[in-house]
Amino acid sequence: MTTPTYHVDGDLVPAEEATVSVRDRGFRYGDAAFETIRVYGGTPFEFGAHDERLRRTCDHLGFREAVPETADLRGRVEETLDANGLTDASVRLSVTRGVQPGKLTPRPSVDPTVVVTVASLPRGGTAGDPVWDRPAHVQTVETRRIPDDAVPAAAKTHNYLNGILARLDLRGTGADEALLCATEGSLAEGATSNLFFVEDGALRTPATDVGLLPGITRNVVLDLAREMDVPVETGRYDLARLTDATEVFLTNSTWEVRPVGRLDGVEREVGPVTRRLRRRFEERVDRLY
Amino acid sequence: MTTPTYHVDGDLVPAEEATVSVRDRGFRYGDAAFETIRVYGGTPFEFGAHDERLRRTCDHLGFREAVPETADLRGRVEETLDANGLTDASVRLSVTRGVQPGKLTPRPSVDPTVVVTVASLPRGGTAGDPVWDRPAHVQTVETRRIPDDAVPAAAKTHNYLNGILARLDLRGTGADEALLCATEGSLAEGATSNLFFVEDGALRTPATDVGLLPGITRNVVLDLAREMDVPVETGRYDLARLTDATEVFLTNSTWEVRPVGRLDGVEREVGPVTRRLRRRFEERVDRLY
Repeated sequence: MTTPTYHVDGDLVPAEEATVSVRDRGFRYGDAAFETIRVYGGTPFEFGAHDERLRRTCDHLGFREAVPETADLRGRVEETLDANGLTDASVRLSVTRGVQPGKLTPRPSVDPTVVVTVASLPRGGTAGDPVWDRPAHVQTVETRRIPDDAVPAAAKTHNYLNGILARLDLRGTGADEALLCATEGSLAEGATSNLFFVEDGALRTPATDVGLLPGITRNVVLDLAREMDVPVETGRYDLARLTDATEVFLTNSTWEVRPVGRLDGVEREVGPVTRRLRRRFEERVDRLY
Repeated sequence: MTTPTYHVDGDLVPAEEATVSVRDRGFRYGDAAFETIRVYGGTPFEFGAHDERLRRTCDHLGFREAVPETADLRGRVEETLDANGLTDASVRLSVTRGVQPGKLTPRPSVDPTVVVTVASLPRGGTAGDPVWDRPAHVQTVETRRIPDDAVPAAAKTHNYLNGILARLDLRGTGADEALLCATEGSLAEGATSNLFFVEDGALRTPATDVGLLPGITRNVVLDLAREMDVPVETGRYDLARLTDATEVFLTNSTWEVRPVGRLDGVEREVGPVTRRLRRRFEERVDRLY
């Protein structure tokens, strides 16, 4: 396997030389936005939606105007894919507030640091295989989702300790995804995924006002469900609702639609709505090949 | 001015070459602990307490056993000071979880990245001058302190966006420190400082169980107050208490004891307890010269 090539601050560099300054605010404070984008047959999936969310994150952080233009960002992603000879991949695109004089208070003038890293993934679509080798084993954890009034829930940033602490709560359980509740106790999301469940034939997912990251894949799945005439509801749900649910699944850009095979130690069947949504998602991906 | 020298991963390097990998979890996720330590006459102030808190942070993050020994960390700090010819300085000491295979879930085997950066500060003690040029202008902000059940409040990490967002709330106010309340509304702390106030001659500061970072300087000031027979109380206070307070001040390692000269637009006098505590603190620093 050859060394991967990454894109840092405008240049393609071998992975071992891909670095940022220790003075970069992305390192000092996690003062940075990022997106994880899946690439199918050379095409970044939902690039527009990722680009928009990245800008929204930077808006929350007060440096939206410093983010390079969409075509520029997309160019860096494509150059990185080309340099690595990858057409099926996962891309991580980060924009930091860069190096600034002074200490914690951000300065208005921002020279952002843009980093693109890539990793190979299997082919997607109906002819491909899932990136996961089994349905998710999910465990609810003690760590609570950071509330929206402390850090905007819709911002996807390098401050990812909340999710890391949730994953650390899984030690010894055999689970591979942590399910976080909001401070007031209602279901929020997984450490790196959104939660869906099916009850009485309707698809339900926690509403964004619970305080969760509105995933790009979450939105795609909600759209697909509506196209398929599956009733959709978003709301505030407690954990007991999952016990009664006939199906539970997770979504994120890498996993796509991933069924939950075990929840808090209880085995669960993969159900028909999950299967149909997954199939529909793969058909949508097929159009990119 | 010559280029500063920093300490990265065991080596002294010129600042412009002081970098970390874009794969370092300290960059990707802010998955790192840090301390800001003031140095007086070549001696790091309260190094033991900083070292202990750093280990406590890494314990919360699950990699305490990977932190280099105290003498090793202290050696890196001293080498960095020597390389820069500094005896009065501020030191930032970071320990990250380093580069790991896989994605968000931390692996048990940790090869930490240790970074030391330094900046010159004026001489401290009774013969020195404060690093600030005026009492603090403080404004309460909408951003709420992250609750302890989402990220442990006692952990000092590279996830510093909560404080950055609070500082961004200050734009246009002329204030230089943001005062954050807990989610339930009681006073917590400043973005980079602890809050104290004097009422009926007694010194009061929000209790750690409100969810705040227990500052090293906060502890020193509480000790000094007890030595001076100033009554001390910690508790849960709302903003109205500050209106009635006769004195308000902030503490952190760099500012030491910093009076508040304006609070939510209202001018405030620097009071006698604040002055005496500041003097006593400087006398304690004098012993290091």
